Amino acid sequence: MTAPGPLDEFGLIERFFAPLAGPSGLGLKDDAALVHVPVGHDLVTTVDAIIEGVHFLPSDPAETIGWKALGVNVSDLSAKGAEPLGFLLTLALPKHIDASWLAGFADGLGSAADLWSCPLVGGDTVKMPGPLTLSITAFGAVPSGTMLRRSGARPGDILAVTGTMGDAALGLPLARGSLPSWASTLKPEDRAFLVERYRRPRPRINVAAMLRADASAAMDISDGLLGDAAKMLAVSGCGALIDANLVPLSDAARHALTAEPSCLETVLTGGDDYEILCAVPPARWDRLQANIAACGVPFTRIGMVTEREAGFSVQGSDGPLNFSSLAFNHFGQDNS
Amino acid sequence: MTAPGPLDEFGLIERFFAPLAGPSGLGLKDDAALVHVPVGHDLVTTVDAIIEGVHFLPSDPAETIGWKALGVNVSDLSAKGAEPLGFLLTLALPKHIDASWLAGFADGLGSAADLWSCPLVGGDTVKMPGPLTLSITAFGAVPSGTMLRRSGARPGDILAVTGTMGDAALGLPLARGSLPSWASTLKPEDRAFLVERYRRPRPRINVAAMLRADASAAMDISDGLLGDAAKMLAVSGCGALIDANLVPLSDAARHALTAEPSCLETVLTGGDDYEILCAVPPARWDRLQANIAACGVPFTRIGMVTEREAGFSVQGSDGPLNFSSLAFNHFGQDNS
Repeated sequence: MTAPGPLDEFGLIERFFAPLAGPSGLGLKDDAALVHVPVGHDLVTTVDAIIEGVHFLPSDPAETIGWKALGVNVSDLSAKGAEPLGFLLTLALPKHIDASWLAGFADGLGSAADLWSCPLVGGDTVKMPGPLTLSITAFGAVPSGTMLRRSGARPGDILAVTGTMGDAALGLPLARGSLPSWASTLKPEDRAFLVERYRRPRPRINVAAMLRADASAAMDISDGLLGDAAKMLAVSGCGALIDANLVPLSDAARHALTAEPSCLETVLTGGDDYEILCAVPPARWDRLQANIAACGVPFTRIGMVTEREAGFSVQGSDGPLNFSSLAFNHFGQDNS
Repeated sequence: MTAPGPLDEFGLIERFFAPLAGPSGLGLKDDAALVHVPVGHDLVTTVDAIIEGVHFLPSDPAETIGWKALGVNVSDLSAKGAEPLGFLLTLALPKHIDASWLAGFADGLGSAADLWSCPLVGGDTVKMPGPLTLSITAFGAVPSGTMLRRSGARPGDILAVTGTMGDAALGLPLARGSLPSWASTLKPEDRAFLVERYRRPRPRINVAAMLRADASAAMDISDGLLGDAAKMLAVSGCGALIDANLVPLSDAARHALTAEPSCLETVLTGGDDYEILCAVPPARWDRLQANIAACGVPFTRIGMVTEREAGFSVQGSDGPLNFSSLAFNHFGQDNS
């Protein structure tokens, strides 16, 4: 056996990750994990990888990296109307990762897992001769046959989003340590809010069941509102009319737009919102809006679904908006 | 939107991976996948990441990399007694990966998925500023409460393995293009066999149900027979007596050992066997052996489970064997 050092795989799992494991994790000492899917439910599963320098910054705190790795996946589950059951973690660790980083990472991951009732059930830890790479597979459950799809939007449906848009994309340059001119006019608490929104997504798990009951289609907004909306409507075979003036903004984002109106493009097409976009038949709108408002989540109508022939259009204060790229594309950003 | 190039994420999924997706994959166009767990069954899930230069060679054919990525995971399912249901794929692609590589990879992955009835249901594709990294999460089902654990071995149980040991570890230097002295005496077909065993694991899915019925504990042998056996027995709170002379060898491995007796250490502690180690109560041995033999899988008794106090010992022709390291450790190989 190799000498147990700080990064010995088994010692590392025992020390940092076994404490996060639920009973199905078998102490993380088996080849596989058991996931109990409640009777009468379907298993919903999703995987997202995040890589240092691509999806998070080398300077991001370990604790928020752990939080975000789980958050981006739980956000996908929520958008499908699913309640979290647990997750698998793959950690590909470069040599420079030490016990202090792992402790912070496990702390952030564990806090998120507790908050969202989504325990660690297993995983894999490997050596990485490249950038720190994390991949999480999350599991959730929906009553059989009720998973929300992207493909269910119909002409006449109302388009709506949870939360506020663009905060994370505005926070990214600030998290990088640069200070764009628009940001210099912002109060420190606005800047801190935007960075926090970039680093620590808050999946909307408490609205999952409501959306499942009343929305016709939904998706997680991760690559920018407009690009993701275009994807959902393409899969639904529909068009859309979105009113940019209705897109909900945080105070901080509003201050940024006041300082620099061209930030609108970042707000509408930037990534990392981790909010939910959904389509809602008009007859169900009032109930859904009331239910979501009752649990304190902002929920805002931003437009409507149209026939496919009407295309995908975005209305601004001075006419239609056209951006060179609708979506932030982690994958294509160096290829485009 | 970014221009659709050969490595545009959506075009890439459509072209190479949508054809591998089963109906639960929703055409790989949604945030998440549905996995149908049969009534009265538990979901068993496992994840393994493989990285170029760590778990496979830059010179390995794309087709066998696809095969192996799924094989190592299905092997974990089989060792738990689970029947495959499907898998999620995470692909982290460096820039040098082109359409021809992806076509070969998808071909190998698809052949394996068909053979093992384990369809692609979803995944994630990201840009990697580092080595090619693949991670697969595989799903399987067992009748509720019957998943085989590592922890069930009891003193008096027979220890047995499927297939032959050490072929892949002997094949590794040959796949790397080097020719150790022992290999120069081997026939070309023996060398080709060993390389094939390294590149193309054959999970023992057809014995999963038999093991579930009669074994008390089981695990997938991926990091070397002795190290993995030591892990299984430690979790079971037992010791073991293994007879190295009983360990089953292929003709090719036997020829290698004849040429160079010290290859025995590689055979017993090298990685990548992807066979199953199990513990079997003596009363169930005859039935299990007959059932497994009937489906043409070699199944060989190699020792017995003892009380913990007896320790973990390996008997060779000339007395107890002691190796500096019991296990091949992908993770620790540069840290040890």
